[in-house]
Amino acid sequence: MTKDGSGKGDKKAQQYGVTPQSTDFNDWYNEVVKKADLADNSPVAGAMVVRPYGSALWENIVRWLDDRFKATGHESLVFPTLIPMGFITKEADHVEGFAPELFTVSKIGTEVLSEPYVMRPTSETIIGHMWSGWLNSYRDLPFLHYQWGSVFRAELRTKAFLRTSEFFWHEGHTAHADEPEARAEVRQMLDIYHEFCRDVLALPVVRGEKTASERFAGAVATYSIEGMMRDGKALQSGTSHYLGQNFSKAFDVKFQTREQKEEYAHTTSWAISSRIIGAIIMTHGDDFGLIMPPRIAPIQVVIIPVGRKDNFDAMVQEGDALAAELRAQGLRVKVDKRDGVTNGFKYNDWELKGIPVRIELGPRDLEQGVVVVKSRNTDEKETLQRSEAVAGMTTRLDTIHDWLLNRATTYMREHTLEADTYEAFQAAIEAGNWVRAYHCGDAVCEKSIKDDTKATTRNVPLDDAEFFSEPGEGSCVKCGQPSAYGKRVIFGRQY
Amino acid sequence: MTKDGSGKGDKKAQQYGVTPQSTDFNDWYNEVVKKADLADNSPVAGAMVVRPYGSALWENIVRWLDDRFKATGHESLVFPTLIPMGFITKEADHVEGFAPELFTVSKIGTEVLSEPYVMRPTSETIIGHMWSGWLNSYRDLPFLHYQWGSVFRAELRTKAFLRTSEFFWHEGHTAHADEPEARAEVRQMLDIYHEFCRDVLALPVVRGEKTASERFAGAVATYSIEGMMRDGKALQSGTSHYLGQNFSKAFDVKFQTREQKEEYAHTTSWAISSRIIGAIIMTHGDDFGLIMPPRIAPIQVVIIPVGRKDNFDAMVQEGDALAAELRAQGLRVKVDKRDGVTNGFKYNDWELKGIPVRIELGPRDLEQGVVVVKSRNTDEKETLQRSEAVAGMTTRLDTIHDWLLNRATTYMREHTLEADTYEAFQAAIEAGNWVRAYHCGDAVCEKSIKDDTKATTRNVPLDDAEFFSEPGEGSCVKCGQPSAYGKRVIFGRQY
Repeated sequence: MTKDGSGKGDKKAQQYGVTPQSTDFNDWYNEVVKKADLADNSPVAGAMVVRPYGSALWENIVRWLDDRFKATGHESLVFPTLIPMGFITKEADHVEGFAPELFTVSKIGTEVLSEPYVMRPTSETIIGHMWSGWLNSYRDLPFLHYQWGSVFRAELRTKAFLRTSEFFWHEGHTAHADEPEARAEVRQMLDIYHEFCRDVLALPVVRGEKTASERFAGAVATYSIEGMMRDGKALQSGTSHYLGQNFSKAFDVKFQTREQKEEYAHTTSWAISSRIIGAIIMTHGDDFGLIMPPRIAPIQVVIIPVGRKDNFDAMVQEGDALAAELRAQGLRVKVDKRDGVTNGFKYNDWELKGIPVRIELGPRDLEQGVVVVKSRNTDEKETLQRSEAVAGMTTRLDTIHDWLLNRATTYMREHTLEADTYEAFQAAIEAGNWVRAYHCGDAVCEKSIKDDTKATTRNVPLDDAEFFSEPGEGSCVKCGQPSAYGKRVIFGRQY
Repeated sequence: MTKDGSGKGDKKAQQYGVTPQSTDFNDWYNEVVKKADLADNSPVAGAMVVRPYGSALWENIVRWLDDRFKATGHESLVFPTLIPMGFITKEADHVEGFAPELFTVSKIGTEVLSEPYVMRPTSETIIGHMWSGWLNSYRDLPFLHYQWGSVFRAELRTKAFLRTSEFFWHEGHTAHADEPEARAEVRQMLDIYHEFCRDVLALPVVRGEKTASERFAGAVATYSIEGMMRDGKALQSGTSHYLGQNFSKAFDVKFQTREQKEEYAHTTSWAISSRIIGAIIMTHGDDFGLIMPPRIAPIQVVIIPVGRKDNFDAMVQEGDALAAELRAQGLRVKVDKRDGVTNGFKYNDWELKGIPVRIELGPRDLEQGVVVVKSRNTDEKETLQRSEAVAGMTTRLDTIHDWLLNRATTYMREHTLEADTYEAFQAAIEAGNWVRAYHCGDAVCEKSIKDDTKATTRNVPLDDAEFFSEPGEGSCVKCGQPSAYGKRVIFGRQY
């Protein structure tokens, strides 16, 4: 399959050495991650090494989100990587959820510890403990905290960015005087995630509430954004939890109210992790490799000086000058100055890495005051006046953003089917779609669907979820009981 | 002791509840860290919680250094937090240096590991392992890598920022084709650290080479920057190591040279950690609390609306307007809108937190178009035209920077004495000074000085070290043998 559907892609892709998506999506993913220099395997079971190109992408993600968190009044903190084992067991659901995945530290230097530590799988417990000491009065609230860091959860079958034993994230943690304020925070952060995905990463995602059996361990309500990958599977791309008073009761996070009464705080937590990079790869990539959404791309424009030996240096100089003009517009630009490789190799290399725009700079073009411009999402090269190429670059990047978002949205809509019989449900899942179906809300029934089809409930779209939020009533697609959610639930296989 | 030496400080400091430096420097430090909301103790032995004010300071440090690393061509990566135990033992000196401090992970989920992991004390080993796979030809070099993250080294007696079992840092790691290029890198990074300390943190530091017994475990040469705290002790504030081929041989980091021969890479590593925050506190602080160097301060200017109940809201609005004018100059400004506390409490609170400039905004001043401005390093309040206060703010902050740097430089010079007899040496150390003395270079002799006085060699200043670099020859201050370094060595007690 190719960008324009011409079939030409298969041959080109083979030359570049990436398995086509249609042949084996999993191989395609692993090859792209490695060949685009995003990440590599490590000698530590389940952990990856993020290489400079992947790290630069993650840094851009961190910066955008971090700015947004600060703009909405949140403050960063740094809590220890280790947590006393006893903390994890204090919240009953929490320990049940995380115990099988814990990394245990039982020796420091030569000292064997009587109470071991665990490497944090998430930090609700230790943060609850600290808050307990910091919180006195309603005047201290809200606590609007977050931290960036690594977390550790054992994974048997790992896959770069998507499922690694060590992964990177922010975890937001807030405490409020009452439930409505806490719930408003949960919703605010979900909406920020949605905005980030749509407007920065060009990822369409469905905002909704998780069913009870898919909730975070210890939460009263869990909300998620769900995206569809190009193999039809879902990727939960961010979560926001209302924790009620579960953790504040377990860790004694209480305060004196305005009316001089003692009350437990209402807490929330929310996160986006490095798996969002997996979503970028699997939503936008094609048989030629990655396509980086322009607003987050570490390199937005690559300039290739095309010259022979005797004028290559002059072309490189021209490339630097052009790069300076583009950078003056705030763009991230690279000039490929490698002299040991062919132009064709360079083109393929940067296509694989998904650079949104390539500019070729040749001596003859230069004489005529033109450059050759190619957007990553088309096969066409355009010859433009140099000044026109510079002036139009931001618009061009926006166009690529829109193209990516539209393509992904169309794909998601086309691969989301309604089913009112279990046969239709199973067939649609088997064919690699999401299914919108009525469900009774019973956890046992939900589990039986999962056992049959490997599909789980993704979420129940919010009323203003942008996608799939139409109200409706019907019979459970599996058991025939009345539907529980006032609308269809999204089912799908997931990463 | 007070800012102007008037003795007034003691009383004021007691009111604010901070032990004066002269009474107990250690208590002063611990109280300032806690009361200024920089950090708190954690339930994890040896680890701290960095609170929002400390975290904002660290983020500013990270951003400045990170920009500089990128500007000098370095790329960030992310390596796993865990390292296979077997890696640590591959470089003989390295394992000897770190074995007593290691955090060992021997269980994941319910699985007991046959080969345990350690939480990284530093990452030379795993990075060497990865490089070995990435490096083929001289064309691949140099590798100019760094990562930000936590490292773990068991500490028995801990102290926030200065000595914690988990601390935060960048670790730079580079690989080069030959020794001169590697040594130039080592020097470049030392100079960047020096520039950062002097021009951003207002910290005078001495660039020099460590003696053999103070080298990093596995290094051929270690360079450091050393600063003097206000109790006369030294703080090693950054290090840059030339590792020769030690790690590349242990981890098989080799490449084909231009001449088609196989050669091991020459590697370097360098770091500044969160202990630099300890240096800021202990170099600039006084009996009133912190003094934040203006160029790194999370809040550079605090505006206190001074009003009674009926006009407080109007003053707050004025404060926001003034803040907007200052922010338009790129300044970091906070308006203190708390209404449950007195103005006096606010003044003390922000003095304790070391905000470089305070502006008081009262209704009568406002009628006259003036504001009251107070710099943290003086006791004087100035009444200035509002426009004048705004226009002069950047210069005012620069003046505070210079004042801090000069004060610290004077202090360091006054408390660095030359000694040519061992009696004079011991007396000078005991009185809380650094000592410049000739030394024979013998490790046993050096150790005997440490055993006698708790003073160690800080470094041998470089020829262009800015401080204490005069060449000279003499007899070892301890054993009388000829001096080994062509100049005096700096000795001091250290953090």
